[in-house]
Formats: sequence, C-alpha cells, structure tokens
Amino acid sequence: MSHGGGGELTSRLIRDHLLRVLGNQWLDPLTDAAVLGPCDGPLVVTTDSFVVQPIEFPGGDIGRLAVCGTVNDLAMMGAMPIGLTLGLILEEGLPLERLDRIVQSIGAAAREAQTRIVTGDTKVIERRGDGDGLLINTAGVGRQLDGVNLSARRIQVGDAVMISGRIAEHGLAVMSRREGLEFASSLVSDVAPLNALVRSLFETGADIRFLRDPTRGGLAGVLADISSESGLSLEIEERAVPISPTARHAAEILGLDPLAVANEGKLVAVVAPDDAERLLAACRAHPLGANASIIGRVTAAQPPLAELITEAGGRRIIQKPYGEDLPRIC
Amino acid sequence: MSHGGGGELTSRLIRDHLLRVLGNQWLDPLTDAAVLGPCDGPLVVTTDSFVVQPIEFPGGDIGRLAVCGTVNDLAMMGAMPIGLTLGLILEEGLPLERLDRIVQSIGAAAREAQTRIVTGDTKVIERRGDGDGLLINTAGVGRQLDGVNLSARRIQVGDAVMISGRIAEHGLAVMSRREGLEFASSLVSDVAPLNALVRSLFETGADIRFLRDPTRGGLAGVLADISSESGLSLEIEERAVPISPTARHAAEILGLDPLAVANEGKLVAVVAPDDAERLLAACRAHPLGANASIIGRVTAAQPPLAELITEAGGRRIIQKPYGEDLPRIC
Repeated sequence: MSHGGGGELTSRLIRDHLLRVLGNQWLDPLTDAAVLGPCDGPLVVTTDSFVVQPIEFPGGDIGRLAVCGTVNDLAMMGAMPIGLTLGLILEEGLPLERLDRIVQSIGAAAREAQTRIVTGDTKVIERRGDGDGLLINTAGVGRQLDGVNLSARRIQVGDAVMISGRIAEHGLAVMSRREGLEFASSLVSDVAPLNALVRSLFETGADIRFLRDPTRGGLAGVLADISSESGLSLEIEERAVPISPTARHAAEILGLDPLAVANEGKLVAVVAPDDAERLLAACRAHPLGANASIIGRVTAAQPPLAELITEAGGRRIIQKPYGEDLPRIC
Repeated sequence: MSHGGGGELTSRLIRDHLLRVLGNQWLDPLTDAAVLGPCDGPLVVTTDSFVVQPIEFPGGDIGRLAVCGTVNDLAMMGAMPIGLTLGLILEEGLPLERLDRIVQSIGAAAREAQTRIVTGDTKVIERRGDGDGLLINTAGVGRQLDGVNLSARRIQVGDAVMISGRIAEHGLAVMSRREGLEFASSLVSDVAPLNALVRSLFETGADIRFLRDPTRGGLAGVLADISSESGLSLEIEERAVPISPTARHAAEILGLDPLAVANEGKLVAVVAPDDAERLLAACRAHPLGANASIIGRVTAAQPPLAELITEAGGRRIIQKPYGEDLPRIC
C-alpha cells in the first residue's frame, strides 16, 4: 500500500517501473500536468476505464487494450492522437513483474500508434476478493483531420455500411481464457490502434458520414445505434459479415451471438454509395483492414430498424444487446 | 453489474443519472469523444484517479475532489480548464441515491470552476471487501495563460515562498471522519478549484517562478520537492505557516505532522522577492486566499535542504513523507 501514498515509495515506483519504459520529454519532468504545443485544428478529447479480467489474454492485455481503445475513440472522430494520459489503479499485492509486463505493453502500443503517454497518475487500493490486480484509465487528446464531418445525421438512404474485418475476436478470446476453454491458437484478440487506417480512409477523399468501433455491444450495438441515431433503417447481409471459422465455433460453444461480441481493432463506416468501392479498396490495402467487407446499406424503411438478412434468407431485427452478455471484456 | 455492460441498461444509467445533471453540448451526443475548438495557446493535459475513503466527508466528496484536483493540476501549470473527462468506476451495489449525490457534486464543482465535463465513461466492477462503492478518474485539458513561465529551474536565491491559506484541513477532515473522531464542526476539507485565484495572481504581473498544490505529501512534500528540483535551500518560518487551532488540535490527537497532511484547495508559490508583497496582497484579496502568508525564502545553503525554523527557535529538516502517512485521502 505504501507505493500509493504519494511519498518517496511512490516516486520510486514511478521512476523505476514507469518512467524507465514510458519516459519522454513531457512525462519525465513528473509535473502534475503536461504542457504541449497549440492545437491548430479541432481538439478531440476522450476517456475510457479498463477493468478487463483476466488482465492478460490471448493477443493482448489490459495495457494494450487501454492504449488502443483510447486511440480508437479519437480515430472514430477522425482525430489523430496528440497524447494520452495514463491513470493506473494498482491493487495491493500486484506482482511488480506483472506490472512491468503491462507497462511494456502500454509503451509498445503507444509506439505502434505513433503517440505517447504525456502525463499519468498512480494509486494503490486494497485487494478485491476477485482481484486481478490492475485497473487503467486512459484519456486521449487528438487533433481532428481537416475536412472531417462525421455525424449520424449525415447518413442518407442508399449509403453503404462497411466493416473493416472479422468480428468478435476480442470478446471471444477473453471469454475463452476466462472460461478455461481451449480453442485453436488462432483465436486471439484483434486489439489494435486504428488511427493509421482511419487516416488512410480519409485520404481517399471518400464522403465518410459516420465511423464507430464495435467494442462493448459488438457490431449489433453499433448497427442499432446507427439506425436509432440516423432515424433510418439498415439492411445487413449476414453472409457478408466477416467471421473466422474459429470465432464462429467459439461463439457456438459459449452460446453467444457473434454480432453482439466486442471487437477492439475494427471499425464500422457509413459511406456515400458512390465512394463505397473506393473506401473498401483503401481499407483492404491496409494490414488492419485486409478482410474488410461492405455488409449492407441504409434504407428508408420505417420505423427505423437494423435488419439482418440471414444466410438462410430470413430476416431478423438486430437489437442493441441488453444488460450483460460479456462482463468486463474491456 | 448489468449497468456496466455497454448495453441498454448502461445507456439508461448514463441518460437518467449522469446526462440529466452534467449534460451540455459536448456530452449530450454520447459519442466516444468530444470535439472542441482549436487551442491557440499551449495545451495542458493532466489526469488523476481518486480512491478516497470515505467517499463523502466533511466539506466535500469524491466528486468535488476529482473536479477540483484536476482543475488545480492544470492551474499549477498556469492553465485554465477547457474541459474535463469523467471516468466513473462503480462498484456493484452502490446505491443510486449515493451516485446521484456525487454526480450533483461533480456538476456543482465544475460550474464553480467555470468548466464542464466534455466526455466520460462508466464501468461497473464487483464489490471489494471494504468497498465504498466508487472510484473516479478525471483528466483535464486546459490552455496555458499567455506569458506563464513556471519551472523549478527558474527559482533563485532570495525568492519568497508563499502559501495561499491554512494547511492540513483536507487530510484531517477525511481522517477524522474515517476514525470516527468528533472535532468542532469547523474541521472541514478545503477542497476548492484554484483556477480563478491563479488567474488573479498572474494578472498582477508578478514574476511567479513555480506553483504547486500541496496535496498528497502535504506542504512538507512540496517544500522538499522545491529544494531538490531547484538545487537550492529553503528557510521556512513555522510561525508564518497558517493553521487553524482546530486543525492543530486534530493533528495532535491523530499523531500527525500537519506539514505532511494533504490540502486540496491551497497552492504554494515561489515568487521573485520584489514581487512578493504584491502577490500576497492579490492572493489575500481572493476568497480562497484570504489567509495567505509568506512562509519563507530561498537560500544558497548547500547541500540543498528545506529547513523549518520552529516556533521555539530550533531548526529541523523538512523531509518528503516516506510511505503511507495518510492512506487514500485523495
């Protein structure tokens, strides 16, 4: 507990276990706040807390998840990260080797996203009964790219709906680890920073109306949101939704609808119909978008609903997941 | 637990218990990030997590503490807040009335600081053994005032050291409540946003070299930091350090050195000697600085140390509190 008291022990923890890995010109002075340059375009701000259990899972850990989740929240507003804050809440008894692995992962993910931790805070709390040892809050500040105009209100009948790759891999990887299920080693979280992909999508000049990453609530949650926020309907082709055989199998065993399972390295874009093929090509040209697919289109049907046209040719309404399908997968 | 799952229940919690109180043009769209305007001066970014127990205490609560702590971290860099993020981590079973009180307090503190919550995130975790129900992370973005140049490296021999008011009231109020001690009702936390006070200090044109708020580690921690970061020594007059009789009494009963006890509405300023009286007058003219005092000066003595000249005329070295004097007072 002494490590969180704000005294000399806290300083030592920060110096030896955090700064050594994450240090940079903004973080090193250990002031209570970082002073950055001016921001000449719209400033975008986001925050997320991460309480995933287990804190290490196939394909990632809570540190990578925090960095990517925050970078992606900025990216979904068309913004590139200027810097991230890092709030660590450590549970008493967390092994320092485990902390070190998570901090290494935070540093690696920040480099991958071409950003950095500019300021932080560390607290220690008493151990919880089920405690896995670590909660993280990250906030991100970014600059919106010029010419970006994203809003559900801009969505029009005929627009295309694209997803950037295979669904459900993050949630299934975490759940499988938690349940002790052994699938093929190919079932790993998709957690990744999407800012470079988003930049390349905007560089096409396509009229992108709306972007969102299907995290908690999965693809189903985003599609239901698009419908309710735009007041329009969606027709989604189940056969066009990319999913790996392993993920499909894992979802069956776990009794989950893969549409409702969280992703941490995918985006859903709504785009003007004439620009859809161009956007799809640009997405597939990026390593994180290789399996992108146009999965449906916006229609005028009323009342506004997201509908799935199943592989068997039936129709079902895609609903926003209610309650707690997948506790604490982010 | 369902309230944290990212589904419809989460939406309802956010709409009915958070947006109704904290809503504004940036928060209301419930996007994953807030889009603000450009920032034409240096952008300042900070973060803090709050794990205080109990979450309600004489003079404040964890919500007011989070807002003020973050606003003050910006203010100590000479920055006025543009907006705050709010990451709520709720423990399962937290009564909604209690959450409502804290959220009201967050809203009131933000208005008092003339700022707002621009984006947020809510998670629910399982109950901890000792769980008081709520952790908060806030991050703040601000714009630095023009002409501010704060750095321990600018501190010079002869500079004056000022504190803006009576010390130790936050930590003692929290500790007294926690220990079930009953003091005079005047022992309340000093938690308050210091941005308006800081603005008025800079408006004097005084050459302020360094600002820091004496939170964890108290005045002793800041004085030790000033000495080690500047490489110079401090001579502090104990009799000049403002403390109320109630706080002095409470510290005695609790066996604590009031110099090492946290404050949440005070600042320490190091200022050029010729500007000290002007700065003191401006500070005393503000309601939050009425009891300000010049408590000492910077000397060339080597090795660099912060020394207290006691009321009895003795000298003792002021050390950075080591370990955990006051667990979880912020």
